[in-house]
Amino acid sequence: MPTQHNMSHLPFGDHKNAPWYGKDILSVKQFGRENLEYIFAVSHEMHDMVDHIGTFDLLKGKILANLFYEPSTRTSSSFTAAMERLGGSVIPINDVKYSSVAKGENLADTVRTLECYADVIVIRHPEVGSAAIAAKAARKPVINAGDGIGEHPTQALLDAFTIREELGHLDGLTITLLGDLKHGRTVHSLARLLSLYKVKLNYVAPDILRMPAELIEELKAKKIEQTEYSGLETCLPQTDVLYVTRVQKERFTDEAVYESVKGAFVIDPKVLKAAKERMIVMHPLPRVGEITMEVDDDPRAAYFRQMEYGLYVRMALLAMVLGKA
Amino acid sequence: MPTQHNMSHLPFGDHKNAPWYGKDILSVKQFGRENLEYIFAVSHEMHDMVDHIGTFDLLKGKILANLFYEPSTRTSSSFTAAMERLGGSVIPINDVKYSSVAKGENLADTVRTLECYADVIVIRHPEVGSAAIAAKAARKPVINAGDGIGEHPTQALLDAFTIREELGHLDGLTITLLGDLKHGRTVHSLARLLSLYKVKLNYVAPDILRMPAELIEELKAKKIEQTEYSGLETCLPQTDVLYVTRVQKERFTDEAVYESVKGAFVIDPKVLKAAKERMIVMHPLPRVGEITMEVDDDPRAAYFRQMEYGLYVRMALLAMVLGKA
Amino acid sequence: MPTQHNMSHLPFGDHKNAPWYGKDILSVKQFGRENLEYIFAVSHEMHDMVDHIGTFDLLKGKILANLFYEPSTRTSSSFTAAMERLGGSVIPINDVKYSSVAKGENLADTVRTLECYADVIVIRHPEVGSAAIAAKAARKPVINAGDGIGEHPTQALLDAFTIREELGHLDGLTITLLGDLKHGRTVHSLARLLSLYKVKLNYVAPDILRMPAELIEELKAKKIEQTEYSGLETCLPQTDVLYVTRVQKERFTDEAVYESVKGAFVIDPKVLKAAKERMIVMHPLPRVGEITMEVDDDPRAAYFRQMEYGLYVRMALLAMVLGKA
Repeated sequence: MPTQHNMSHLPFGDHKNAPWYGKDILSVKQFGRENLEYIFAVSHEMHDMVDHIGTFDLLKGKILANLFYEPSTRTSSSFTAAMERLGGSVIPINDVKYSSVAKGENLADTVRTLECYADVIVIRHPEVGSAAIAAKAARKPVINAGDGIGEHPTQALLDAFTIREELGHLDGLTITLLGDLKHGRTVHSLARLLSLYKVKLNYVAPDILRMPAELIEELKAKKIEQTEYSGLETCLPQTDVLYVTRVQKERFTDEAVYESVKGAFVIDPKVLKAAKERMIVMHPLPRVGEITMEVDDDPRAAYFRQMEYGLYVRMALLAMVLGKA
Repeated sequence: MPTQHNMSHLPFGDHKNAPWYGKDILSVKQFGRENLEYIFAVSHEMHDMVDHIGTFDLLKGKILANLFYEPSTRTSSSFTAAMERLGGSVIPINDVKYSSVAKGENLADTVRTLECYADVIVIRHPEVGSAAIAAKAARKPVINAGDGIGEHPTQALLDAFTIREELGHLDGLTITLLGDLKHGRTVHSLARLLSLYKVKLNYVAPDILRMPAELIEELKAKKIEQTEYSGLETCLPQTDVLYVTRVQKERFTDEAVYESVKGAFVIDPKVLKAAKERMIVMHPLPRVGEITMEVDDDPRAAYFRQMEYGLYVRMALLAMVLGKA
Repeated sequence: MPTQHNMSHLPFGDHKNAPWYGKDILSVKQFGRENLEYIFAVSHEMHDMVDHIGTFDLLKGKILANLFYEPSTRTSSSFTAAMERLGGSVIPINDVKYSSVAKGENLADTVRTLECYADVIVIRHPEVGSAAIAAKAARKPVINAGDGIGEHPTQALLDAFTIREELGHLDGLTITLLGDLKHGRTVHSLARLLSLYKVKLNYVAPDILRMPAELIEELKAKKIEQTEYSGLETCLPQTDVLYVTRVQKERFTDEAVYESVKGAFVIDPKVLKAAKERMIVMHPLPRVGEITMEVDDDPRAAYFRQMEYGLYVRMALLAMVLGKA
């Protein structure tokens, strides 16, 4: 540890009475603004810590069961790295079609078995509500890493943390969500989290992929200013955060409609000429052409930094639920 | 480490002259009663250690090659956790259809390659005798994690250890094995281990799935009292340990026979009313309806604790063959 | 650490100005003789270190992303063990068909994502040039673990290191490459590395699997003495290193031709009677009958020791590119 960097102010150590000790992370709905501020603060310290000392044996001797019922290299690797950067170990369970689930074992039994070996369970599962079932069965903390079209709370948290770290604050920002706003659990969860702040939300989507009316109503009740657009032109110049998601061809029954709209949802350097100098472009990745690779060198392109912020958020969450932050 | 818990009496450290250093764990047939007592004692200390200090760098710097030619989330995770709880590392090899075995490499060559990297090899393989072949090829210790319908000695050891920890002793107990007693390597191995003690064994199975006559003869020669039943009614009230296994529909050529017997092999709270207050229900898991979930809250339901005892037994075996216990 | 073994002379520690810090390992073409000598020296120290103290926390807190787009138990396990023996951690990514590559993510994005979590990336990929693409995208060091019929530089390095450790030097040796010399990237890379030394090369191959003329020209320009043979008889008695590779039946359109030649490319104890007493037999493994198992007990059979040398070379390379050697 470099002597010039004093870590003694860090909120780390044994805090078994800490509010998050033993808790599950299942849904963005469980967080208030105060919770977010706390998660952001711990995540920020994790960032500091990785930058200055690289690693830290905060979770030494702790074991994470990384239970992935469907593949996700990015999310799985991110949780693995988060645990290992804190000195902990991982039981990787990546290919569950070969496991006892294939033999007919129910999810509750699997989770109750794994908690005999591990201290915390991360679960990715294709069915909505599966993470809640796992959490109910387990005595040990469960973190939802995506349950079908349900929730993916750590993605929403890392998205919000990215904005906070890149632009310094969330209140007062104009955030434009672009692409398939109908099906994406990512944008739904993010919009809900952002509604804890005084933000203005723009929705830019093809007509058949608009933000669900229920969600718009939900946020309206929270006095969030929301505007829908069919294209970026009008709203891009005022945008602080452009959050891009993929428009999948398969969503369209009429291919001609897809061909007519797809160009409006591709971000390239020419499109970004109309954007502010201080703003950021985000994407949950993987991208398949929605943002051209020429954009990567633009300092406003924040999507790879976003991946890195994800590491810090997951380190923070693991430390919190294990009573170490 | 809490000061009130003195670990200095633990039988851990470098014992390269220890009887188990460098040994293979291949079959329950290699154990005498004295060996079991030693394994149980070390496993018990491991339990103590996990409870009091969580982790312990006994195997720091040691590497386990976890070689699974067929999937088994539970067993694979258990060995991984056992190694990690002792500060060691794991090379996970879970999906061997993609490995050099697929290219035609023979098992001996694979094992001789892996021992260049690892200090101990755990192998699960679908063919009987494969673990013995691996052990013959390897200079380093090999642990059999199941070789087809052959042996699964660590399962039998953890089963016996569970009984010992839950009921305090093995001598004098009445143990009832229920379900498919014909095909299950688990019950065969367990019965052999139990025959080292003064136990009474009951066998409850459908007629076509009875305990093999050879095994009954083998245990009779050891003066073990054995009784066969077609139902639980008569023997449950005297039972100290009810060991439940699955009756698979596919075993029956006549579906009507299956339908007529299956109800007799399902354990629910009503069935357990006839059981002692101080007894335990065990199952190797996964279960598929043989024990209803209502039983889980009964203090006699020991099958999840059984999973946990498995961790301690595997920690003990790894430490023993690596000369550290 | 045994007191009689003083490790203070080891070239380990923080050397961020070291020549290899942050470098990629992509091709044997990037190495000069001086580089090889350095790699061999560090690898030799790693060997010493493993023999005397087993493990060493040189890379504690460092994370390796082990990215395998095609299966290779041996290479993947070797890199995993190398990282773990140095106290580092591994993110295993073995089954990439299920990952975001399957969703259409390009290799550059995958690598840029993984370097957010890891300190070094090892990549095995079926396409030639893929490792170079990965290295161009990444800020962090990339090690090529095989890119299709392209390169597999760490295999060539471990092959050369094996000769050096077994026979003490490379200059002056006669090295006979046997088998399929047309398709094997292994023998091509090794021949190129060996051309940095004063060696004599013999090529023994079926007529349709001869060493490519371009490679022979390339080495001729470096004044390497090369001779082609259709059988071993003439050259075996002068051979110091016999490097055996597999002759695959599928390479032959005419099965009769295969049947007529295959016997000439199988090494058994009888064949080895004509070899020197002090020479070695190598093979990249897996073998499928090219060397009979009776040869394994011959002290000249170096192919399993070769696997072990691979561990030391990979430990050395990881330490080097991470600025620790």
